[in-house]
Amino acid sequence: MAKISSVSPLAPKAFPELPVIDGVTFSTIAAGVKYQGRTDVMLAKLAPGTAVAGVFTTSATRSAPVLDCQAKLGGHTEDGAAILVNSGNSNAFTGRGGVSAVEAITRAVSDACTVPQSRVFTASTGVIGEPLPFEKITTHLATLADQLDPNTIADAARAIMTTDTFPKGAGKEVVIAGQTVKIAGIAKGSGMIAPDMATMLVYIFTDAKIPQAELQAMLSGHNAQTFNCITVDSDTSTSDTLLLAATGASSVDVSGDLAFSDALHDVMLDLAHQVVRDGEGATKLVEIEVTGAKNDTDAKTHAMSIANSPLVKTAIAGEDPNWGRVVMAVGKSGAAADRDRLSIRFGDVMVAENGWVSEGYDEAKAAAHMKGDELVIGVDIGIGTGRSTVWTCDLTHRYIEINADYRS
Amino acid sequence: MAKISSVSPLAPKAFPELPVIDGVTFSTIAAGVKYQGRTDVMLAKLAPGTAVAGVFTTSATRSAPVLDCQAKLGGHTEDGAAILVNSGNSNAFTGRGGVSAVEAITRAVSDACTVPQSRVFTASTGVIGEPLPFEKITTHLATLADQLDPNTIADAARAIMTTDTFPKGAGKEVVIAGQTVKIAGIAKGSGMIAPDMATMLVYIFTDAKIPQAELQAMLSGHNAQTFNCITVDSDTSTSDTLLLAATGASSVDVSGDLAFSDALHDVMLDLAHQVVRDGEGATKLVEIEVTGAKNDTDAKTHAMSIANSPLVKTAIAGEDPNWGRVVMAVGKSGAAADRDRLSIRFGDVMVAENGWVSEGYDEAKAAAHMKGDELVIGVDIGIGTGRSTVWTCDLTHRYIEINADYRS
Repeated sequence: MAKISSVSPLAPKAFPELPVIDGVTFSTIAAGVKYQGRTDVMLAKLAPGTAVAGVFTTSATRSAPVLDCQAKLGGHTEDGAAILVNSGNSNAFTGRGGVSAVEAITRAVSDACTVPQSRVFTASTGVIGEPLPFEKITTHLATLADQLDPNTIADAARAIMTTDTFPKGAGKEVVIAGQTVKIAGIAKGSGMIAPDMATMLVYIFTDAKIPQAELQAMLSGHNAQTFNCITVDSDTSTSDTLLLAATGASSVDVSGDLAFSDALHDVMLDLAHQVVRDGEGATKLVEIEVTGAKNDTDAKTHAMSIANSPLVKTAIAGEDPNWGRVVMAVGKSGAAADRDRLSIRFGDVMVAENGWVSEGYDEAKAAAHMKGDELVIGVDIGIGTGRSTVWTCDLTHRYIEINADYRS
Repeated sequence: MAKISSVSPLAPKAFPELPVIDGVTFSTIAAGVKYQGRTDVMLAKLAPGTAVAGVFTTSATRSAPVLDCQAKLGGHTEDGAAILVNSGNSNAFTGRGGVSAVEAITRAVSDACTVPQSRVFTASTGVIGEPLPFEKITTHLATLADQLDPNTIADAARAIMTTDTFPKGAGKEVVIAGQTVKIAGIAKGSGMIAPDMATMLVYIFTDAKIPQAELQAMLSGHNAQTFNCITVDSDTSTSDTLLLAATGASSVDVSGDLAFSDALHDVMLDLAHQVVRDGEGATKLVEIEVTGAKNDTDAKTHAMSIANSPLVKTAIAGEDPNWGRVVMAVGKSGAAADRDRLSIRFGDVMVAENGWVSEGYDEAKAAAHMKGDELVIGVDIGIGTGRSTVWTCDLTHRYIEINADYRS
């Protein structure tokens, strides 16, 4: 197992103060699924009336818990709900045994929390292909249910970590017609342990009141601009899960409310950035802004081609304003481009225009921008109005160290 | 500039003895385009009657020489032809100046070799975005034309190298109806120097007699199974060029001849493997064999997803039979798959079947296979008859060293 003791240089200074969400309680326990000496199971109970929306990995080999969650999303219910997450074992590629484990855990949560089994959402993250020792979890459910507390979301953020180097949280309060609505979210990803994958798990809670269908639409819309716009290494987990629970406890109806929608977007983007900041070996957070593409879809294709290019990412690691590699990544993306209309900037320094290096380009200035730990690469394709912004990190020796070590 | 002095551990023991192709002559010179103390320009002259076929990068930002070559392919001519290649400067993303440089070089070659300018094919490989000092090349053309020699193909292979750690050549002779037809090819790729890209240049010569359209069809068909089935890091050059010249000097008509087609395929595959063997930092040549996919296209999508996955490639570097990452790469590829029908083997060791680890799987045996320098990862998708085989290398610290060093 790779030792990943030091905190990412891009980590926030501290876990933030998050608002307490009425209708949501948490508890955690050290169940010893795999890790010793730390919590590894978190339970969140959601009050009756809570709407739950979700988005999941699109992997064709997704895990049993993901398939179970997807089947359970849907109608707003008056019965309450619960979320249970374990770290240390992903219950992915575990055959029929994986399905049985999900069944056993959701039944135990249902019994302990007195919510319908059809409203129990689980996720597992950790080693792939090993049977999940679900009894280690179910045996603790009475204790977990006894200790539910509205104030322990930070503990929940810690319990779901695998090789994350810091717990991730973000929150926001928004005043709507004189009443305050609160949002608090936690995330894990994308540290890795051989033979794991960079599973990203995100749980966001709010006391807003909103029908499930509208909550789902809002979540899916923002997801396309936040979590679906980040990449560490282009590899997609079999377990990625994002759930959003709206308890309605504030009684503030946020249907169609832009202020709430914006606040939710901000929380999601904050958590998404924290995932990139904890990317394996990351020393730079890089924003790729593509404008002037044929359409938004093409813009995202170009942006992701740049963000995933090993040559671009190693150049960033080397603090090299290597615009030639950006040209290459645009060219290979498959989306429309015209070499002679491209322009490229690093931060505010224009480096290339109209198919060649900019007149008066000052490499020293571009190189100075590359020395920061938050970089911007701007690319104008010059043929339309499509735009997209995505975030990535650099590709360093530490990525190789973390992922090439033989698992022991 | 990264120092890349040592030869790849996967290099062949020596440059092979190649057949001399009647109708083709070579010369090389140290023109000092960028490199000092080595040859950096090669000229090949092709006898009247030579058919030339080609395939090129599909990059939307491809270089001026590539666009010029593409425009010149086509009809068989009685006028002869010539190929000129320089290393050290790629003449890519050089705006209108790049087009002028191609024009100047092709005109000079046309004059020196007395072939039409419309039959002069050039390529450039090296630094991107810097004006090509074409006078350094044109000034030597009389000397180059004077020194043309049928026996110096090995020198040509050396002159086109950039950061390749060994020159690449392959050849074959095939007897058709009692007469011998010869094939000899050279390639460069895919060493890299910041800020260059992994340009792949390949030149293959034969004395076979075959109409240009048929030669082109044969080349394109084999290209799909050879050079288009290799990947080092998923980044596509703006300059990739493969030319095949058939002089017809043997007078042996190979139209529709399977033995010739097979021999050409073998030479192309040999050169393609040599490019992977010289991949930056490569210590393992890895064959990915996908079977049982919905169709051949899906099979290739799965195979390339595995071959390009940083997590799979770092696991290989770590000699870790990490089948979980192979499952992940299949799942994310976008092609059809059923988690519970997948089977995976490393060499002859079956590791996973029907969605879970194989009964009796012996990790020690799989780990032993991973210690070799030529590995096979077999994946049966289990849902159809589509198949594809691709080749890649591992992702090591040396890749980061080579590509993250600040250019100086």
